[in-house]
Amino acid sequence: MKNTFGNNISVTLFGESHGTAIGAVIDGLPAGVKVNEEFISHQLDLRRPFGKISTPRQESDKFEIVSGVFGKKTTGTPLCIVIPNENTQSKDYSKDYGKARPGHADYTAFCKYNGCEDYRGGGHFSGRITAGLVAAGAIAVDLLLKKGIKIGTHISKCAGVEDDGFSDYENDISVLSQKLFPVLNETAGKEIISNIENAAKEGDSVGGILETAVVGLPVGVGEPWFDSVESVLSHALFSIPGVKGVEFGAGFSCVDMAGSVMNDSFCLLKDKVITKSNNNGGINGGITNGMPVIFRCAVKPTPSISKEQETIDFVNKENAVLAVKGRHDPCIVHRARVVVDSVTALVLCDLLAQKYGTDWLGD
Amino acid sequence: MKNTFGNNISVTLFGESHGTAIGAVIDGLPAGVKVNEEFISHQLDLRRPFGKISTPRQESDKFEIVSGVFGKKTTGTPLCIVIPNENTQSKDYSKDYGKARPGHADYTAFCKYNGCEDYRGGGHFSGRITAGLVAAGAIAVDLLLKKGIKIGTHISKCAGVEDDGFSDYENDISVLSQKLFPVLNETAGKEIISNIENAAKEGDSVGGILETAVVGLPVGVGEPWFDSVESVLSHALFSIPGVKGVEFGAGFSCVDMAGSVMNDSFCLLKDKVITKSNNNGGINGGITNGMPVIFRCAVKPTPSISKEQETIDFVNKENAVLAVKGRHDPCIVHRARVVVDSVTALVLCDLLAQKYGTDWLGD
Amino acid sequence: MKNTFGNNISVTLFGESHGTAIGAVIDGLPAGVKVNEEFISHQLDLRRPFGKISTPRQESDKFEIVSGVFGKKTTGTPLCIVIPNENTQSKDYSKDYGKARPGHADYTAFCKYNGCEDYRGGGHFSGRITAGLVAAGAIAVDLLLKKGIKIGTHISKCAGVEDDGFSDYENDISVLSQKLFPVLNETAGKEIISNIENAAKEGDSVGGILETAVVGLPVGVGEPWFDSVESVLSHALFSIPGVKGVEFGAGFSCVDMAGSVMNDSFCLLKDKVITKSNNNGGINGGITNGMPVIFRCAVKPTPSISKEQETIDFVNKENAVLAVKGRHDPCIVHRARVVVDSVTALVLCDLLAQKYGTDWLGD
Amino acid sequence: MKNTFGNNISVTLFGESHGTAIGAVIDGLPAGVKVNEEFISHQLDLRRPFGKISTPRQESDKFEIVSGVFGKKTTGTPLCIVIPNENTQSKDYSKDYGKARPGHADYTAFCKYNGCEDYRGGGHFSGRITAGLVAAGAIAVDLLLKKGIKIGTHISKCAGVEDDGFSDYENDISVLSQKLFPVLNETAGKEIISNIENAAKEGDSVGGILETAVVGLPVGVGEPWFDSVESVLSHALFSIPGVKGVEFGAGFSCVDMAGSVMNDSFCLLKDKVITKSNNNGGINGGITNGMPVIFRCAVKPTPSISKEQETIDFVNKENAVLAVKGRHDPCIVHRARVVVDSVTALVLCDLLAQKYGTDWLGD
Repeated sequence: MKNTFGNNISVTLFGESHGTAIGAVIDGLPAGVKVNEEFISHQLDLRRPFGKISTPRQESDKFEIVSGVFGKKTTGTPLCIVIPNENTQSKDYSKDYGKARPGHADYTAFCKYNGCEDYRGGGHFSGRITAGLVAAGAIAVDLLLKKGIKIGTHISKCAGVEDDGFSDYENDISVLSQKLFPVLNETAGKEIISNIENAAKEGDSVGGILETAVVGLPVGVGEPWFDSVESVLSHALFSIPGVKGVEFGAGFSCVDMAGSVMNDSFCLLKDKVITKSNNNGGINGGITNGMPVIFRCAVKPTPSISKEQETIDFVNKENAVLAVKGRHDPCIVHRARVVVDSVTALVLCDLLAQKYGTDWLGD
Repeated sequence: MKNTFGNNISVTLFGESHGTAIGAVIDGLPAGVKVNEEFISHQLDLRRPFGKISTPRQESDKFEIVSGVFGKKTTGTPLCIVIPNENTQSKDYSKDYGKARPGHADYTAFCKYNGCEDYRGGGHFSGRITAGLVAAGAIAVDLLLKKGIKIGTHISKCAGVEDDGFSDYENDISVLSQKLFPVLNETAGKEIISNIENAAKEGDSVGGILETAVVGLPVGVGEPWFDSVESVLSHALFSIPGVKGVEFGAGFSCVDMAGSVMNDSFCLLKDKVITKSNNNGGINGGITNGMPVIFRCAVKPTPSISKEQETIDFVNKENAVLAVKGRHDPCIVHRARVVVDSVTALVLCDLLAQKYGTDWLGD
Repeated sequence: MKNTFGNNISVTLFGESHGTAIGAVIDGLPAGVKVNEEFISHQLDLRRPFGKISTPRQESDKFEIVSGVFGKKTTGTPLCIVIPNENTQSKDYSKDYGKARPGHADYTAFCKYNGCEDYRGGGHFSGRITAGLVAAGAIAVDLLLKKGIKIGTHISKCAGVEDDGFSDYENDISVLSQKLFPVLNETAGKEIISNIENAAKEGDSVGGILETAVVGLPVGVGEPWFDSVESVLSHALFSIPGVKGVEFGAGFSCVDMAGSVMNDSFCLLKDKVITKSNNNGGINGGITNGMPVIFRCAVKPTPSISKEQETIDFVNKENAVLAVKGRHDPCIVHRARVVVDSVTALVLCDLLAQKYGTDWLGD
Repeated sequence: MKNTFGNNISVTLFGESHGTAIGAVIDGLPAGVKVNEEFISHQLDLRRPFGKISTPRQESDKFEIVSGVFGKKTTGTPLCIVIPNENTQSKDYSKDYGKARPGHADYTAFCKYNGCEDYRGGGHFSGRITAGLVAAGAIAVDLLLKKGIKIGTHISKCAGVEDDGFSDYENDISVLSQKLFPVLNETAGKEIISNIENAAKEGDSVGGILETAVVGLPVGVGEPWFDSVESVLSHALFSIPGVKGVEFGAGFSCVDMAGSVMNDSFCLLKDKVITKSNNNGGINGGITNGMPVIFRCAVKPTPSISKEQETIDFVNKENAVLAVKGRHDPCIVHRARVVVDSVTALVLCDLLAQKYGTDWLGD
């Protein structure tokens, strides 16, 4: 379904960038789970604009849970989170209506919705909608933590600079969860920030790769074919604006490996089955094998740039020139990190609920 | 759902490699569409083992349509295709049961299904199941062709050799549809085949990248968020065994582009809106923009290799050594091509049916 | 899914009776449809308490559309309606927690949600949640009206009194749409109201039958088997609290008919195919035949009564006696009418969108 | 979805009455469950024509499980059952094509499928398709039995004669499971059969009411709103051809009860919570309360009758007269019984898998 995803645990999104509010409904949660509003705020903070390398639009992201929580615990019925839009400067955008921002959904939304789309600030296509996903996802992240399942994402590469890889998953994930700019190597991080600032000065933008690790998943999660872990995760990940590639384990680099290298040999470590390498990213035949689930998302450079671009005016049906004036981010990779964590958590909760039942996810 | 995919037009898979039969049910087809059995056979032929670089297992892939067709036309009710398994040599596999083939689903299936999985030849995880997908997909490919929508896939890279890129989409797609080994550059193709043969001689295997183009799609297909074209296509593509990465347009290479380069400028070509580049792969905000939809899948080297590999015996719970003896492919990239085309066609038919209604897809 | 229904057009419900707000998200609407807020208010008014025969709880039912509407027209993206809960007197209920109101979901909710349910005023099981359905449904009713499809429901029987049947569908539906107490025979209506008042005086409640007619549907709507018109309508209708029976056409009375009587003979009226009788309620094989779609819902007497009842205290695990003190309705049949119309409209929009595409439903 | 139903455990139907084969795919079953082929045959026998009161068309209903079973146990992957059509006399039907059988789907199928429907013997609308449902349902019935959950259905009323009600659920269900003509009172049964024979002699048909009891369900199964037990059961029940009404507990008769009578008082029987009456049919707020789940289906008189009927010829667009000549049943109520049991079992397995996980349903 368009704006609803998941079977046993599902999330429904709504809202436009400059409308009254955005939000999400999460359904199928187990009852009696303590809802940690501080953690939701913390996750929303990770998504918020960061320093000079983000949009000056500041939203407090004050959310209100209007249903599904009673006495600070989940009721088991739909939990609706509403986040009002506060700091909307619609004037920035309206005067340019018709001039399709290249790389953006302006033109496709115009065609799809016959000119009735809410175009202000990207409307329903705005990254702002991900705030609802993050708030809902925070609850899922928290559910998984209680089961010993941890998710962490870092900037693997951005603005031409590579971060270190994961070395100690548990520790790295823990460290990343507190970082506003999620890198494992601080020096690389500073270089990335500096490069982003330079791009911003030039009125341009940069993209990057996010790498995610999930540890603690039981063996046997996921289904063959259409509910493979890769299928459902990629479905959710490609819903995040700007994601143009998803790969698991060795991903595209598997192409240059022989089968004998790509194959992850199994062995017994005491009583535990592990693989010596993890080129399959913890997934065989669509099903978790007990190793960390590893994947990477390519996030494109933000399409909104102040540099002048050629485009069309689809209202007047003529060629045009555009320099996007509104507030925008020269890079969204660091902000997208928590969105990746959120959809990952939602998807995994759903798969676990399918296998073990909704009650299992409860306290 | 596990083995069912799609909303308005859905496909359900069933079967195990060495069971009685495999097959697919496709539901939601418009009524009155001529079913071209020759074309289904043709598509199945594209999936069949090819020369020395494929498994010696030969299946005639004789399919039987047991429902949904009357007077050679679709009835509009579920079309079930059954493909009997003929040439099954189960003895090859049974004696090694317990020794998990690295990179395969043996161990995860054992854990998930408590040792009750049909392990013969990979069971339900076998690439053989894709024959059902291809047969069902052939009908979808045919439906789209009648609407002027064409899908073509070539081996972009395999065994260390790169093919040429698409130059003339319409023509390239037409040429590829007749090729058993789908390359655009014949010299590259010969080199790839030679490299695959060499890998086979060493008891090893190779992977590759498949690149797909879809032309003729209307503007405005796909939905924001969870039914974005990328989301539903990647969902289906990652269901194909061996796919470990999916990228659209510039994909992962977007990471090294500035926004001003990545953005595809719109312009008017006579009355038609086009983009000057196509780094977004014909999709903005999850919705088609009228340019060719371009994506690539990374297909890993076949995990079944005759080289000796370390592994575990999960029955006896001990470390073990395994050289896979059964019949297997040193490369499945060329055979996976038509599976990619098939799921692409099924997904697009579903999205089009959602937008225009089931009747629109009819003749 | 639990609180989401529909494929191409779906509705998601959220909220508890005494929480912050209730509401609904409707997704898949065509873009550019004028949203008639007055009509939404009108429909909500039809659901509101009526005179002496309803709960004294008065809600203004002021709704806010927080997304999906721009310039008074639908954007085509999710439309979220929020209705704040104003007049909540939670004290009425809390002191009796543990004493399961017979006929209510108190005990089953306690068991299902491990004592974490929001019990105040019935929580998520309250009829109050239907206000969200009615608001969302109003938009669907309006969409259908523009296509010439009209839905009307009257009280067929209540408190021992029978209303007249439909005589002139178009006119009757038009008349009913303006009536707060939906009967076709005013004398019967007065008698029903009087009987309800008498039941209320005795601290008791009454139930009734709602009969619905839908005119103007094209032939060929609905699907065989699981998306039959009866299947999807009954699914939605049985979601309405208090509905314990649903029948189409002659319904249960078909049991006493011979096939030769039950069968509706087709005949040509000028060029139009009609049936002489309509015992099948406008549906053959799950698919509309062009005659009015007719169905009836049995609505049970409101379970909340002030009469003393035997029950259990599930907290203290002992037998108990209960007289429900809070505000409640001695009859909800007349209020349920517009809920029936609403879910009917939502279901039919979904089936029509499946057949003709989302765009067809637009202006 | 059209021919697929269920979330965690789903069933997909295919086939036409006079095509090659009919069948069903059941997906989501736990692995390792012994498949009792004798029981499947037994259930299919309960659906087969019975004595003089059924169609002379005799099908051996030899089914073949072509996937999903290995070593007589479920593999956990899709189980496909194929039932070949043997005894098809298509000539009976073809010469009357165009003459719409009143009460049948001939005309609606013609309109929906633009004249491309397989009209022979009712095609995809034939009751024959239910053989696939029964075979799939037999597996679900068996799963539930192992969990102590028992389903039984009897003819509550047929051909003007009423059967006794349930008195001892466990025993009655056990007795009914062995009866080809499912009545609790043998004298009533003989009278019903005699009346059916009389109707047949007159070239006419009769309908009836089936009453079902489910015992052994845990408390807390089902969901509020759209996955209420009533919603999903009715959805599946109305998919059965000929069902025109469904009611739970007191059903339509609740209309004549005061709330104080309709309400089922809770009380403690030793440590167990029961209700003194069961007017709500074991369901409060859409969720099981531990009492037997009770419902009734109205099955209309078979529309195929040999008596002459007025109708239209939709090919020649003229009024016509029709006496259905093919083989048909003067009553299908007794045969529909096992179809009701089957869909009930499938729905309950799905709801239980949602609550407790797929693994819980296994051995």
